[in-house]
Amino acid sequence: MENTESSDKNLTGNLLVAQSGGPTPVINASLAGVISAALQFEDEIGEIYGAVNGVEGILGENLVDLAAESQQTVRLLSTTPGAALGSCRRKLNTPEEFARILEVFKAHDIRFFHYIGGNDSQDSSKKIADYCASQGYEVRVIGVPKTIDNDLPITDHCPGYGSTVKYVATTVRELSLDSASLGRNNLVTIVEVMGRGAGWIAAGATLARRKGVPEDAPHIVLLPEAAFDAAAFAERVREVLTRQTHCVVVAAEGLKDAAGNFLGAGTGVDAFGHPTLGGVCEYLKSVIENTFAGVKTRCCRLGHVQRTASHCASMTDITEAFEAGAAAVKAAVAGETGKMVVIVRDEREHYSVRMELSELDGIANGEKLFPAAWIGGDGMSVGGQFAKYALPLIYGEPKLSYENGLPKYAELARYGVEKKCPPFSENA
Amino acid sequence: MENTESSDKNLTGNLLVAQSGGPTPVINASLAGVISAALQFEDEIGEIYGAVNGVEGILGENLVDLAAESQQTVRLLSTTPGAALGSCRRKLNTPEEFARILEVFKAHDIRFFHYIGGNDSQDSSKKIADYCASQGYEVRVIGVPKTIDNDLPITDHCPGYGSTVKYVATTVRELSLDSASLGRNNLVTIVEVMGRGAGWIAAGATLARRKGVPEDAPHIVLLPEAAFDAAAFAERVREVLTRQTHCVVVAAEGLKDAAGNFLGAGTGVDAFGHPTLGGVCEYLKSVIENTFAGVKTRCCRLGHVQRTASHCASMTDITEAFEAGAAAVKAAVAGETGKMVVIVRDEREHYSVRMELSELDGIANGEKLFPAAWIGGDGMSVGGQFAKYALPLIYGEPKLSYENGLPKYAELARYGVEKKCPPFSENA
Repeated sequence: MENTESSDKNLTGNLLVAQSGGPTPVINASLAGVISAALQFEDEIGEIYGAVNGVEGILGENLVDLAAESQQTVRLLSTTPGAALGSCRRKLNTPEEFARILEVFKAHDIRFFHYIGGNDSQDSSKKIADYCASQGYEVRVIGVPKTIDNDLPITDHCPGYGSTVKYVATTVRELSLDSASLGRNNLVTIVEVMGRGAGWIAAGATLARRKGVPEDAPHIVLLPEAAFDAAAFAERVREVLTRQTHCVVVAAEGLKDAAGNFLGAGTGVDAFGHPTLGGVCEYLKSVIENTFAGVKTRCCRLGHVQRTASHCASMTDITEAFEAGAAAVKAAVAGETGKMVVIVRDEREHYSVRMELSELDGIANGEKLFPAAWIGGDGMSVGGQFAKYALPLIYGEPKLSYENGLPKYAELARYGVEKKCPPFSENA
Repeated sequence: MENTESSDKNLTGNLLVAQSGGPTPVINASLAGVISAALQFEDEIGEIYGAVNGVEGILGENLVDLAAESQQTVRLLSTTPGAALGSCRRKLNTPEEFARILEVFKAHDIRFFHYIGGNDSQDSSKKIADYCASQGYEVRVIGVPKTIDNDLPITDHCPGYGSTVKYVATTVRELSLDSASLGRNNLVTIVEVMGRGAGWIAAGATLARRKGVPEDAPHIVLLPEAAFDAAAFAERVREVLTRQTHCVVVAAEGLKDAAGNFLGAGTGVDAFGHPTLGGVCEYLKSVIENTFAGVKTRCCRLGHVQRTASHCASMTDITEAFEAGAAAVKAAVAGETGKMVVIVRDEREHYSVRMELSELDGIANGEKLFPAAWIGGDGMSVGGQFAKYALPLIYGEPKLSYENGLPKYAELARYGVEKKCPPFSENA
């Protein structure tokens, strides 16, 4: 019954791709890269399938035929936010789950599997690859990185990060112009951005500063990697407000004190008696309002907008996300498995990258924090090396299609693939 | 000592322009329109001055020479957010203030004054016009409308509204794609937008729906003009979540219950014992979480971003804002005073507008609420007439200049005008 093929370059069969975790502005560009590359390997790859809602779609045998989608739809995918195939946050744990995935793979002759996702998703990729190998079923598993948090190890940066930072920096620059219009040395604008463990996005806001204009916002940047000191923060706000009409603070949601406590956790109670999750914005607002008389604070929590603002995506990021998807397919066809595509930056004067592969083992359980050497001695600023690293990632704007005044985004037709397996019972 | 000229079309002198109130994405386009038009009247208009921070700049004789700004800067103004001259929220009240304004007008031979602002600012315009007339000093005062809230009477719509709605609708569409990626009939995304008294912006979010796609977000729209009913709201959320994987709610910050109480006022207490301003998002989140088990809610409060997102501005709005500024200058030169520019929509098949004038009296103290006839019978939706009204306002995208991956925005050099008056003491 078991397949016992040995690994060879001439493996043929069908391809399955899925998306997982929080969407990014370019997670669909990677999907488009997978589809486009797969179409080029007609000798090796038969059908190009997508699983709806990540591994949940595999378990439920909820597959769609991506080759049947129109070319127009696939072209639009690269600038479409959200996960066009649907996403999930499911981690695979039980032997029944892995057996089910193998059952579906076998039923549909899936020989190439690409999971577009972050740490947890690549952990699933790894386990699927290992399980199939242990059962003698050959499938090539190559992950495609994705996360706005930029916290995956090994890869120079992650698809999704550049677009999020472009949006955040644009927004901070715009907010600072609004704030400067009304400030009289008495206005503090606090912008809370994503980043529970790593401060990459908060640091990215510093790209809002123009070269040679040190008074540009943001004036204070607070990362989870630097323990927050309320007194030092208040003193810095005071300094900024003596020099400038207003002060812009960018804070990561995962800001912690020296004891490691999250400052955004909140201790208040809402109208229903439930504890409030105040958020870092509200916490910092309290610090300021309890320190200064007559200083106004504004809170701006960007929330999920920052991971979905495709209208402000980076063309560099879109291109790299597409290429990462395409590279995964090429590597799988070439015989690779159990790896993830990583972006390697060339050591050249002008920015350029190439796609390479790394073992899934090293990716799945690591977290790349913001480098301590790039954090200013005051713990509230970011050094120039960061700008050199991050600036190329936000270059370029896609040409968006507009319809009725709004960006036109792709919607997959999701042509269903006929089911061949019995239903999967979660509690079997 | 007093000037006693009679009003005639051949008045000559200098022009002063100022900005007031909350900035919009296009308040500087109106400034560019004023400057550009003023340059065309070299027989009538000598210097083109700006007051820094609205009437505060007049009181403080803090004037800048706008004709000295580079053409490049003035061109960039049309796509630059914030108030390039600085803004203020000051209302004029005392006889000393009006006397001071006249003193500064006389010292700089200001014969044309344009205040770009909303209700309060046009109230100031009116009072300045009346005071100068009462003192026999001829100055032509023509206001330029501005407010993202779209709540000024008489004008068909307000410059600033179209761009804010384009940004809000774009964001709602993008958030809904993210939300749809993860929803399993259990995810509610709440987007809180500006609008204390009027629901124009919340209603504008409905432009995110594509024609003929009734399942598109937003699924529920809550305006201040329709009294909120928690039970009916919860029932509607339930209905949406039975049909769809997720539910997107857009709520105006000024949402009220049947007794007229603001629901976003909050009754909680923060870590410092201060009452929290929970916001409408948090209130609605509580309603949902207290009604449904297993439903997740996300809050997204767009805050000040929505009035400053020039990277997502409407070209129609930019053009009209520019034309409104230019029309104010032309009207003043032609002998008009004590009026504000209003936008009149032509009754044609294709959208077109013309700039007309209206008495400042009628503008200053009115508030145009969202029409009751356009609110659905359920109080949680908006009828098709609104889309017909609002859709043309969000058409078109400006070609932005980018520098280092971000939009390039104008910064006035602010060449100071020599002071001629003694300092003004606020407490004189």
